[in-house]
Amino acid sequence: MGRELMFEVITVDEARKIIAESWHPGDTVQTVPLLDAWGTVAAEDIKAAENVPGFARATMDGYAVNAEDTFGASEAMPAYLTLVGEVPMGTSPERALGIDETMAVATGSALPEGANAVVMLEQTTKIDDRTVAVYRPVAPGENVMGKGEDVRQGQVVIRRGTVIRAQEMGVLASLGITTVKTYAPLRVGIVSTGNELVPPAQKPAPGQVRDSNSYMLYGLVREAGAQPRIYQLVPDEEAVYKETVRQAVAENDVVLVSGGSSVGTRDLTLKVLQDLGKLLFHGVAIKPGKPTLAAVVQHGQKESLIVGLPGHPVSAFVTFRQIVAPLLKRRVKEKLPEAVVWGELVKNVPSQAGREEHVRVRLVEQDGKVLVEPVFGKSGMLTTLTGAHGIVTVPLEAQGIAAGTRVPVKLFKEM
Amino acid sequence: MGRELMFEVITVDEARKIIAESWHPGDTVQTVPLLDAWGTVAAEDIKAAENVPGFARATMDGYAVNAEDTFGASEAMPAYLTLVGEVPMGTSPERALGIDETMAVATGSALPEGANAVVMLEQTTKIDDRTVAVYRPVAPGENVMGKGEDVRQGQVVIRRGTVIRAQEMGVLASLGITTVKTYAPLRVGIVSTGNELVPPAQKPAPGQVRDSNSYMLYGLVREAGAQPRIYQLVPDEEAVYKETVRQAVAENDVVLVSGGSSVGTRDLTLKVLQDLGKLLFHGVAIKPGKPTLAAVVQHGQKESLIVGLPGHPVSAFVTFRQIVAPLLKRRVKEKLPEAVVWGELVKNVPSQAGREEHVRVRLVEQDGKVLVEPVFGKSGMLTTLTGAHGIVTVPLEAQGIAAGTRVPVKLFKEM
Repeated sequence: MGRELMFEVITVDEARKIIAESWHPGDTVQTVPLLDAWGTVAAEDIKAAENVPGFARATMDGYAVNAEDTFGASEAMPAYLTLVGEVPMGTSPERALGIDETMAVATGSALPEGANAVVMLEQTTKIDDRTVAVYRPVAPGENVMGKGEDVRQGQVVIRRGTVIRAQEMGVLASLGITTVKTYAPLRVGIVSTGNELVPPAQKPAPGQVRDSNSYMLYGLVREAGAQPRIYQLVPDEEAVYKETVRQAVAENDVVLVSGGSSVGTRDLTLKVLQDLGKLLFHGVAIKPGKPTLAAVVQHGQKESLIVGLPGHPVSAFVTFRQIVAPLLKRRVKEKLPEAVVWGELVKNVPSQAGREEHVRVRLVEQDGKVLVEPVFGKSGMLTTLTGAHGIVTVPLEAQGIAAGTRVPVKLFKEM
Repeated sequence: MGRELMFEVITVDEARKIIAESWHPGDTVQTVPLLDAWGTVAAEDIKAAENVPGFARATMDGYAVNAEDTFGASEAMPAYLTLVGEVPMGTSPERALGIDETMAVATGSALPEGANAVVMLEQTTKIDDRTVAVYRPVAPGENVMGKGEDVRQGQVVIRRGTVIRAQEMGVLASLGITTVKTYAPLRVGIVSTGNELVPPAQKPAPGQVRDSNSYMLYGLVREAGAQPRIYQLVPDEEAVYKETVRQAVAENDVVLVSGGSSVGTRDLTLKVLQDLGKLLFHGVAIKPGKPTLAAVVQHGQKESLIVGLPGHPVSAFVTFRQIVAPLLKRRVKEKLPEAVVWGELVKNVPSQAGREEHVRVRLVEQDGKVLVEPVFGKSGMLTTLTGAHGIVTVPLEAQGIAAGTRVPVKLFKEM
């Protein structure tokens, strides 16, 4: 383990796979009130203790009937039914229907026993207080939501690993489930190193710059649904650096080390990771982002992951999204294809075969077409990211993409 | 104004436009710490008070030079420069470079005056403590990030109406801006009506059902970046209903009234909206969701919007997403094309011309293809939404979509 890994550059897919296989953070389960569950991930299968609806309900305003009593009814030869009452919303029908009997119902009313369908108001005439003429036959089940038709008692309504969206909240409410067991969000510590860095609130002395990576990473971690925490800036000194990372490891599931891009700082990061844990890889075939490295640290029953991100902000951004973000969503079971915007590339994008290249782009709508403009610029320039809407990926083996090609754009974030 | 509007069904686009023109909620601006700004919308143009970087920096490890001093250098005829020091990270160079002088720099180091480029370490040999051989010429600006190259002093770095994403947080940090003026999220009151409804925590008596719409809408409002609040359930009684909506109007920018689907409840909702404000429309050419209505209420200097959503959960869900959600994002200036997943429809989707139809679908990946399966089912069934991944829209004038057609799927929510 160690130095000899330095030159084995692996692909992004391999990096993800190696981490997934090597890193086993414990799962912390928390019980949250239903209203706070939005966006969390269910930590258990949730079963229905009852039927929804709990009784057959009308889905139209009209008359509850036994469908058989309407068979053969027509404009010329209506079925005449005896009106024996009504079922106000929220009440239980007073009695069952006998043969050729009916009760008035509103949308949502319970059906009386003996009824299995509802005739729409528009297809009837109320002749008098006791008589309703029905002009069309209805089939059994017509205009009715059957007992348990939405949810059957005993059915698993939400599987472990499901993201609780608005509709899941609705189903849980309909079942009377007001707290949910969900996975606690993964905790992500952010450690930035560099003798030149000062916190944003501080005025940099000549030669110093403000730490922006920690704040960008904080936002990216939030975006990925995890819980970020920024640690104090550390200088390029092994002892302080190691101690801070060690503390962050103890307090988090993932530690992001965002170091400088100088050889000295990179060597220091490598040393700290090797000393604290087991190095997984060093170097990924991604541009920008090549000097990314990762290690796993065992502590007690838990394992924490340390990812060393490149110092240039654009490199750290791309690497986070490609390698770290998917790991932070590891509890989500169902992986959907990525939603993208297709558009026409307006400039050639050169790339070198053998590495996956991520190009920042802007979208411009023109004459009903979506144009995709590459945003070129040094990977140290944050404004190339603020000026971009998303990323176009040039695959590992491609040598660039020609202008005029239709390409899929992965948007950064949709509000 | 009033009843005569009942039958004028308008399109979804018209509904959005009418509301946007008629409803002018005041803008509440709040100052938030940078770390809490993620996902908010900037309420002012933000200008850079300084340059980023504040000084020219090396983007490679190597030697700071005046490019001219390297012109003509080659393997055979290196340029010999006098090494007059180094620039440790975070410090200011001790002096300027004279002719044919150089200083050692690391990635991120400040360049001394007189230097305008950096020669990469790999293209040099350190002959002795005072002499460096340079084997390749560099151009002015090479391997350097110029002063103000990322952000120029005085430049607007973030425009009003911009969503603060991770990269905007990074830029703000780099400028020392640690608080941001953002729009307070719109407040959305949720009022559900129906004699049959009980809160989720309560066991329904026969004929009663639990209120699920309020909870689903709570999730949808969260998803749209606004601030939801659920009001107490109201019975189908005009006085209580009106008083609750009036209170919700006073306390919110938007009030969602989710009523039953019976004619009685719908008439009651219409009456309440007409009494409290100015009715904007009643009836939208959308399926599901036709009986949607909206009104605007003026109170003091503010205007609140009331939207009456259909009672069936699927109808309320679709209408919210199509009509209400875009309104809640009104402060966001830049509207990007929607990201979608394209796939092949596996079943015919029938639809009636003259209304926009929203079909719930599941995505299935098979042999590298994305298949799109419609989830059919009554609009009272919440599980047709939990079982779906997104929506396919059949346009207003189309009569359905044939199986085998490639269709864009708008996903419900990406984690």
